[in-house]
Amino acid sequence: MRGNFFGKMLSMTTFGESHGVALGVVVDGVPAGLDFSLEELQAALDRRAPGKLRGTTARKEPDTPEVLSGIFEGKTLGTPIAVIVRNTNQRSGDYEALKEEYRPGHADKTTIMKYGIRDHRGGGRSSGRETLSRVIGGYFASLVIPKIKVRGYISKMGPFVLSEAIPKNLWEEFSPYNFPDHSKTEEIEKYLVGLKTKGESAGGQISVVVDDCPGGLGEPAFQKLKSDLASACLSIGACVSFSYGLGEEMANVPGSIVSQSSANFGGIEGGISNGERIFLKVTFKPTSTLGKKAKAGRHDPCIVPRAVPVVEAMVKFVLADHFLRQSAYSN
Amino acid sequence: MRGNFFGKMLSMTTFGESHGVALGVVVDGVPAGLDFSLEELQAALDRRAPGKLRGTTARKEPDTPEVLSGIFEGKTLGTPIAVIVRNTNQRSGDYEALKEEYRPGHADKTTIMKYGIRDHRGGGRSSGRETLSRVIGGYFASLVIPKIKVRGYISKMGPFVLSEAIPKNLWEEFSPYNFPDHSKTEEIEKYLVGLKTKGESAGGQISVVVDDCPGGLGEPAFQKLKSDLASACLSIGACVSFSYGLGEEMANVPGSIVSQSSANFGGIEGGISNGERIFLKVTFKPTSTLGKKAKAGRHDPCIVPRAVPVVEAMVKFVLADHFLRQSAYSN
Amino acid sequence: MRGNFFGKMLSMTTFGESHGVALGVVVDGVPAGLDFSLEELQAALDRRAPGKLRGTTARKEPDTPEVLSGIFEGKTLGTPIAVIVRNTNQRSGDYEALKEEYRPGHADKTTIMKYGIRDHRGGGRSSGRETLSRVIGGYFASLVIPKIKVRGYISKMGPFVLSEAIPKNLWEEFSPYNFPDHSKTEEIEKYLVGLKTKGESAGGQISVVVDDCPGGLGEPAFQKLKSDLASACLSIGACVSFSYGLGEEMANVPGSIVSQSSANFGGIEGGISNGERIFLKVTFKPTSTLGKKAKAGRHDPCIVPRAVPVVEAMVKFVLADHFLRQSAYSN
Amino acid sequence: MRGNFFGKMLSMTTFGESHGVALGVVVDGVPAGLDFSLEELQAALDRRAPGKLRGTTARKEPDTPEVLSGIFEGKTLGTPIAVIVRNTNQRSGDYEALKEEYRPGHADKTTIMKYGIRDHRGGGRSSGRETLSRVIGGYFASLVIPKIKVRGYISKMGPFVLSEAIPKNLWEEFSPYNFPDHSKTEEIEKYLVGLKTKGESAGGQISVVVDDCPGGLGEPAFQKLKSDLASACLSIGACVSFSYGLGEEMANVPGSIVSQSSANFGGIEGGISNGERIFLKVTFKPTSTLGKKAKAGRHDPCIVPRAVPVVEAMVKFVLADHFLRQSAYSN
Repeated sequence: MRGNFFGKMLSMTTFGESHGVALGVVVDGVPAGLDFSLEELQAALDRRAPGKLRGTTARKEPDTPEVLSGIFEGKTLGTPIAVIVRNTNQRSGDYEALKEEYRPGHADKTTIMKYGIRDHRGGGRSSGRETLSRVIGGYFASLVIPKIKVRGYISKMGPFVLSEAIPKNLWEEFSPYNFPDHSKTEEIEKYLVGLKTKGESAGGQISVVVDDCPGGLGEPAFQKLKSDLASACLSIGACVSFSYGLGEEMANVPGSIVSQSSANFGGIEGGISNGERIFLKVTFKPTSTLGKKAKAGRHDPCIVPRAVPVVEAMVKFVLADHFLRQSAYSN
Repeated sequence: MRGNFFGKMLSMTTFGESHGVALGVVVDGVPAGLDFSLEELQAALDRRAPGKLRGTTARKEPDTPEVLSGIFEGKTLGTPIAVIVRNTNQRSGDYEALKEEYRPGHADKTTIMKYGIRDHRGGGRSSGRETLSRVIGGYFASLVIPKIKVRGYISKMGPFVLSEAIPKNLWEEFSPYNFPDHSKTEEIEKYLVGLKTKGESAGGQISVVVDDCPGGLGEPAFQKLKSDLASACLSIGACVSFSYGLGEEMANVPGSIVSQSSANFGGIEGGISNGERIFLKVTFKPTSTLGKKAKAGRHDPCIVPRAVPVVEAMVKFVLADHFLRQSAYSN
Repeated sequence: MRGNFFGKMLSMTTFGESHGVALGVVVDGVPAGLDFSLEELQAALDRRAPGKLRGTTARKEPDTPEVLSGIFEGKTLGTPIAVIVRNTNQRSGDYEALKEEYRPGHADKTTIMKYGIRDHRGGGRSSGRETLSRVIGGYFASLVIPKIKVRGYISKMGPFVLSEAIPKNLWEEFSPYNFPDHSKTEEIEKYLVGLKTKGESAGGQISVVVDDCPGGLGEPAFQKLKSDLASACLSIGACVSFSYGLGEEMANVPGSIVSQSSANFGGIEGGISNGERIFLKVTFKPTSTLGKKAKAGRHDPCIVPRAVPVVEAMVKFVLADHFLRQSAYSN
Repeated sequence: MRGNFFGKMLSMTTFGESHGVALGVVVDGVPAGLDFSLEELQAALDRRAPGKLRGTTARKEPDTPEVLSGIFEGKTLGTPIAVIVRNTNQRSGDYEALKEEYRPGHADKTTIMKYGIRDHRGGGRSSGRETLSRVIGGYFASLVIPKIKVRGYISKMGPFVLSEAIPKNLWEEFSPYNFPDHSKTEEIEKYLVGLKTKGESAGGQISVVVDDCPGGLGEPAFQKLKSDLASACLSIGACVSFSYGLGEEMANVPGSIVSQSSANFGGIEGGISNGERIFLKVTFKPTSTLGKKAKAGRHDPCIVPRAVPVVEAMVKFVLADHFLRQSAYSN
């Protein structure tokens, strides 16, 4: 009820403050008998981890997952899978100075409005660090739907705009910045370092393609697939928009044109997957740049590259949840 | 679990096919002792009702609500409030011809994928008619949060684009088309009739402003206020995008500029309402224009004018739900 | 959240006051394509209906169900099934006299404590009449689990005590009083009429046997099958106890004896069905006998005979829900 | 959905196998700003801990809780509180022999039926060890309802039967065996040691008294207070019955007598607390006594003494949850 729970048949309960003892997640509803790989889980976390990319946060944390339950002899037991990641880089010094500092666009002020108290050592529950729980959830979701392919990428970040909605090299490996055009990698790095130097920040857009998703996922009224995907994406800290298919462009194109290509519907008709490629797009706002926390350098000038695996994880989670839901009724 | 349930502390369970006996909703969680007005409920439904505007669907239904429970001597009892609206305009003739007709972008095909069966007399659960349940829900939500003001309006439809994000006459009455610029009413009417004549359709954008919303609503992780608002809006049939604050523009504006005005954050920081004006925007796609159903004339060439009260209702519902949630913890 | 919702994959939302316009239920999660029979639904309601048995309430209501949605051409659509039963026998006269009358053991007083308002024309939501929604739910549950056999019967009522825990004629038809020993029917009738004459009331016990339930239903921690069955039964108005297998006798028998027959575990081990016969027992308290409402004669001196189909319905509902849950994970 | 989640406004998600890395719980919905005491949490766990009482299991585990989140500077943050307890006493040797051993009345066999796989090193999720998560949950529940007093005690165990339903020394300290008659402590110890020597086991009954509970808690239909209390108690491993007030005796006493004392209704009328003393009773079956695991001595011959704090914890949790629910609507 306090919003730390996501999903129905596949669910995750997340916990942890950015500067507390640990963050973690309890993933429930993973069917029994699936193969678990700690290496793959670590690899999933590494894609999101800070301190790996030039131009991102200076905070370096190894993000080592510890599996506490639900796995036995390399297989899922069907019981809840608890995974924690300890915060090794806790703020030890004097953080009283941060107590009254409210970053614009951030949860600092609203957390006090809501709870009357907050862990002012960092972003608390509203820190980007919370997203590691989601990445863990996404890893387990991918075990549930091994045949469904999910790929996120940056379609826009500062001056970098992808020329096509869907890149040709979609299923090949991207640079760690998750921009499909490899020729831009160096420029991106320079751009991000430049932002950081200036104390500036930038937002951007991430697109996600889902292939090989079966038709029939999603409910016809409130938990439409698009509705749950939107909820999932907007639950990520800095995400400010969600659209699928033609998206906002739908306001400009007449129905006769829209109907000419089923791709315009983004793989979802009547809120239910139609078996075709799913296409969605989200926008992230620039990170908050003011205040002592920002100056201390422990922030990303642009969260977008590291947000890609988080968006992918949330999309996978929604699909896996709906896959299980649909299975219940279609035996 | 089948997605006909929405909300936590305030919830609605909706039911009904567009060409079945009746549609309706069970609204639960409305506190006891609130004043109920059948006239106001009827007025809310009338704003959504078909057949009232030139240029909209020819289907004429009175949409008369019948309250079955939860109200006694003009007051809410705190028990579930069931309201039904009978379908008076049922298709009586031969509808076998529609059985195999799948409208593009519509649920016709995906309903079969999902259930293997559908009520092919009409859109079934995926009909726009389902939204009357939401309008009823929104009416009761407004009883829960009488001080919070919610206003939706068309910001874009075909050639009609509102010049300002938020119109000056926001709290005055708009034309029935819900476009704030009254000088355009006749043109809009002509435009919609024109679309209909051509068998064409159009999408558009709806903006919503919320004033006097207390701070502290929304949860910090998965059920962020923005997340639940997105889910609510995207659960409306033809809605294809959601954004709040600067929205997609956030991908273009540097953080230093964004931070200069708190309005850019759309009243939500860290996923939690900050006590300022909330601003959000959604896009609707053009209605499906092909096929016999469309030709029969019982459709809207542009759903946007009638969608405004539906979007408002969903926004109110989310706010009322979060208002009650927050009340539980802040005594 | 206000407790009018029951179940997960198969759920029911109930509504209605005993003296309001109608009572009803929205059953959701019934798979698509199942055969629906209005006659069978009516028959299920008739088993619970008042006014059919001598010695029960004088209130005569036909309890005619009207199906509003979710059924098309005799089949379930997979969409929510709304069914209502109108109250034809509404109290028309002066009921102000009842406003301050609180029956002992009844919800009259606590409803005021909770809501500050109540529909004092009758029991409101807490009336036994509310159970007709459950019987409707149970009918649809039986469509989901056609192979599972559920049978309830009176094992004790006043001086009538069944000599065996499980009668030999278990699957044969009982008398309308639901006591398996047919030779007692006349005596029971006399007994109940006698109670009524004296203004007395009695409680009793109902046992339920479930055969052909597959193993593996129920969750290992909080939603154990026994836990959900207990919740289901105790949610019936006058039910005051639940036990399964040996029940309270387990406090008297040493483990070595208990282990000798698996029947002692009542078909549930570790909270999960083991594929054997499930056996459970519930106790109902005597109905409230004081006050004007009782004197008016519109009450049952003993609710137990009419409670049998209600207990059966709730048991079926739990089993069908868990059947669907388990299906989701075991494909 | 897999039954590891309990509660609405106050909820707990539990995880952990008895012989895995750790067990734990995520408690969500605890209001912000409440005082937390690690000592009191440890004391709560110690009441349940094994190896402290002669005549109970030989398994000795310190049960040291580690708080991972949700607490800052000794106060609750309003965010999810994750607490884990590591299993220090893991089975290191050869446990293959246990793979095919199914204890009667235990989850061994049904776990395989359900999941097709199990952690055969011990009881897995169905181990009594799982209850430590509940005790932690109960501790946090007690922070939410500091004024409500909850006391459990053994009313029957083997030859030891409490002479009164509610002992006079109710709010004084009992012996660690939780039997209110102190004069029996030595006999109880002898009895339990004797059981163990014989390889025998016993069940028993636990009664719970709740004082100072406000009226109005519990919902009128499905989530009646009695319904949720029953669900909570029956979700404890070996619990086989639940009753409140007069309980099964209600089948023997005529209504006129029952009505004479409101205590017979056990503090709950119409499913809602009436502000009077709440009284309930549960039965536990004897522990499984067969098989190698039993012989290895790592079991309790009678779980009842250690079950008392677990039952108390579950009762507290239900009350705290309903307290928060009711708060939401009664502002």
